[in-house]
Amino acid sequence: MTPEEFRRHGHALIDWIADYTESVDERRVQPDVEPGDIRSLLPEHPPAKQESFSSAMDDVDRIIVPGLTQWQHPDFFAFFPSNNSYPSILGELLSAGLGVQGMSWSTSPACTELETLMLDWMRELLDLPAKFQSTSETGGGVIQGTASEATLVAILSARWRATDGMVNADGDTTRLVAYSTSQAHSSIEKGLRIAGIGTHRMRIVPHDDSFAMRPDALADVIAEDRAKGLVPFFVCSTHGTTSSLAFDPTIDLGKICARENIWLHVDAAMAGIAALAPEFRWVNSGLDLADSYCTNPHKWMGVNFDCNLYWTADRTALLGALSILPEYLRSAAAEEGAVIDYRDWQIPLGRRFRALKLWFAIRCDGLDVFQPIIRSHVELTQELAQLVRDDARFDIVAPHPLNLLCIALSADNIEDSNSATDALIERANASGKALFTRTVLDGQSVLRVSIGARSTDRHHVLAGWELLSRLADSSQ
Amino acid sequence: MTPEEFRRHGHALIDWIADYTESVDERRVQPDVEPGDIRSLLPEHPPAKQESFSSAMDDVDRIIVPGLTQWQHPDFFAFFPSNNSYPSILGELLSAGLGVQGMSWSTSPACTELETLMLDWMRELLDLPAKFQSTSETGGGVIQGTASEATLVAILSARWRATDGMVNADGDTTRLVAYSTSQAHSSIEKGLRIAGIGTHRMRIVPHDDSFAMRPDALADVIAEDRAKGLVPFFVCSTHGTTSSLAFDPTIDLGKICARENIWLHVDAAMAGIAALAPEFRWVNSGLDLADSYCTNPHKWMGVNFDCNLYWTADRTALLGALSILPEYLRSAAAEEGAVIDYRDWQIPLGRRFRALKLWFAIRCDGLDVFQPIIRSHVELTQELAQLVRDDARFDIVAPHPLNLLCIALSADNIEDSNSATDALIERANASGKALFTRTVLDGQSVLRVSIGARSTDRHHVLAGWELLSRLADSSQ
Repeated sequence: MTPEEFRRHGHALIDWIADYTESVDERRVQPDVEPGDIRSLLPEHPPAKQESFSSAMDDVDRIIVPGLTQWQHPDFFAFFPSNNSYPSILGELLSAGLGVQGMSWSTSPACTELETLMLDWMRELLDLPAKFQSTSETGGGVIQGTASEATLVAILSARWRATDGMVNADGDTTRLVAYSTSQAHSSIEKGLRIAGIGTHRMRIVPHDDSFAMRPDALADVIAEDRAKGLVPFFVCSTHGTTSSLAFDPTIDLGKICARENIWLHVDAAMAGIAALAPEFRWVNSGLDLADSYCTNPHKWMGVNFDCNLYWTADRTALLGALSILPEYLRSAAAEEGAVIDYRDWQIPLGRRFRALKLWFAIRCDGLDVFQPIIRSHVELTQELAQLVRDDARFDIVAPHPLNLLCIALSADNIEDSNSATDALIERANASGKALFTRTVLDGQSVLRVSIGARSTDRHHVLAGWELLSRLADSSQ
Repeated sequence: MTPEEFRRHGHALIDWIADYTESVDERRVQPDVEPGDIRSLLPEHPPAKQESFSSAMDDVDRIIVPGLTQWQHPDFFAFFPSNNSYPSILGELLSAGLGVQGMSWSTSPACTELETLMLDWMRELLDLPAKFQSTSETGGGVIQGTASEATLVAILSARWRATDGMVNADGDTTRLVAYSTSQAHSSIEKGLRIAGIGTHRMRIVPHDDSFAMRPDALADVIAEDRAKGLVPFFVCSTHGTTSSLAFDPTIDLGKICARENIWLHVDAAMAGIAALAPEFRWVNSGLDLADSYCTNPHKWMGVNFDCNLYWTADRTALLGALSILPEYLRSAAAEEGAVIDYRDWQIPLGRRFRALKLWFAIRCDGLDVFQPIIRSHVELTQELAQLVRDDARFDIVAPHPLNLLCIALSADNIEDSNSATDALIERANASGKALFTRTVLDGQSVLRVSIGARSTDRHHVLAGWELLSRLADSSQ
């Protein structure tokens, strides 16, 4: 492709993206396809000779887009959102165009320094503890791809600290024990397993009626493990669980962790961004006691995936766990924070210039855009909750302080409620008019209404409710 | 940012990228900056109100770009290349614009199906064994972010198979032993450490004069470990090491691994792409015996970072290691390959639509572009080797069958040679006119000339040689 062709096709693609974004609401949210449908429409073998970009875009229009779940659709109420935004799309484009590698400071100084600054800016915008600032004595932040990677990095840091670094040599994890509730994200189990903490040493701590961890139960399980000669080393406290957006009581958990010398990681992948609006700063409760923390601008803030922000208060443990340099090459400058080599802050070596999309989003959207979206989504969730409460056919099954509402169809017994709720979810999703995710809360089938797409407005929520309301009777 | 602003700024950014790409050769390869220089030019605090995109781009021009190492520069001879290309930049842009999540088939069917097809296309283009095809009985492929992640996935699969899956429950890795040479990539050690295989159970197998693993030495070390009651479980064979592009003898290693029931991972991050040209298919030697394999289109093929291709011949082990679903939810369809949930093929949960940039690169550049670039780089390396051979001041210190030349300044003893070579590298890089990476081969300081940037032509290589040649005398 010549530079001239790139200019022409690039301009057209920019227009295509604007058109797609502004008209995505006309599409089905979930595609109507069976496994293999997409592949069967594409050539089984690579082309023998070059094709035009236009022919590729024809296939995008004809085959690819109709086969996608439209995550940017305003009627997307599934999972948690994975938003993009115009400034951040341009940031990703610029990153691809520059094509630099930020694995260490020297491989592209501006890539590292802008990232560090963005973590400091975000610490300030979210009002997080000063111990996470890059200029603090022992802490700092980094962009990870996903909360899963942040979790794994936290586990590895905790593992290093609990073993005084011995794990790097002997790989012995057989006494370490980790704690979370059944509501914690699946990446906790995955990360622990990767790090050699098998399910036998993962403790599911009981939760209360609001699906939050019970501190008394945590203290009990830790005491039991200590009595067995095991080493409690990692607690994950979730600020906004995936199933119900429940908040673990980090202040109480943190006191236990401090007393027991256990690493406390706080996972606020979805909800942490709420702190951009001062009235929701309660989502930061207890972070003074956390060893590490993460939240995802690629969810509620419109910085397109992937962009997870991970802060640690103990970069010595992080570098101990992830730096692959032998001891005599460990950089004093890096440990003191004068120069950061981000390759030692993450699982992979290579890394692209992800700070650009965050920078563009903060400068060209900023709080003027983020705060009204967050506030509107929370208000709409409360308005929807009132509608649900007024409808005897439905139950609200979990607290809903932010933008997730968990509902179920009422019935005389749990089996009937579950089958009716499952049927409702299936019918609503099959309509293509909206998309919801099913979860299970203590045996109860639940329809999650996650209100987080940037373009979701009041009429989308009301239409979604109208759809559920209409399908409810035939589902029971 | 409104849709209209996005169109206007997007068009301008597309033009900016074309301008940047076509004029990058006018810039210093390595920036002339000290730690903190970039940050000191940027506001310490986030802006109080929205700023224009133009003001952000002014800062890109004035502060960011002059602070970058120019990885797309034709005089970039450092590390291995991390190339982009016009079609793949557009693929990344489209991926950002669509903003879908491909964590499982159902979260965006076309995202999964196009990726599977691209892995099959690439298997065909590279002429890899049929056992890696998605439609094979036990194998398949996936896009990983980096070779580091591919390595970790291979280690975790091997760990699962060697323990009959018990590691998921007991996390006990204390008898497992892994093997590579000192020339293997640092991500092997990092991945092993993450997986709970400490340095005490990483064996550095001796290499021969060409920096390739000695099969007899591997067999000996394995026998010693077996005698100690340990469990050899993972061998990494590198096809093109980072330091010198050495090739481990996979055919011989594979026979040992098959006999000993050890997972054989082949890491061809840089060199594997050479197989796009039939005369270089020898880089695939022994892959019939490999359990897993990876190579990076983001290096020599111009698919912008991140794009690593990972194939396994044993997807049961992969799913066993990485699926976080309990047994009773394990999908028969997924294990049989009818539906692929790529979240279970990688470390993170979330994933973006990376297949698009590979698809665009194959369709709109394709072999017509890839093959001449690969051939030219190999030819230029051989031409440079001849110039070096003809210059008594220099030595060639490793075989150079492809596009990496390892050279050193001659001296009466190794200390003088090393200090002269180190001085030469430092002076050449400080000039800003080219960039080389230093490595050490068996105690010898080495200047690596890695010829892999897409725009590197004969006159760039000759100018690079002229620079080295001119600085050589003053370095000795």
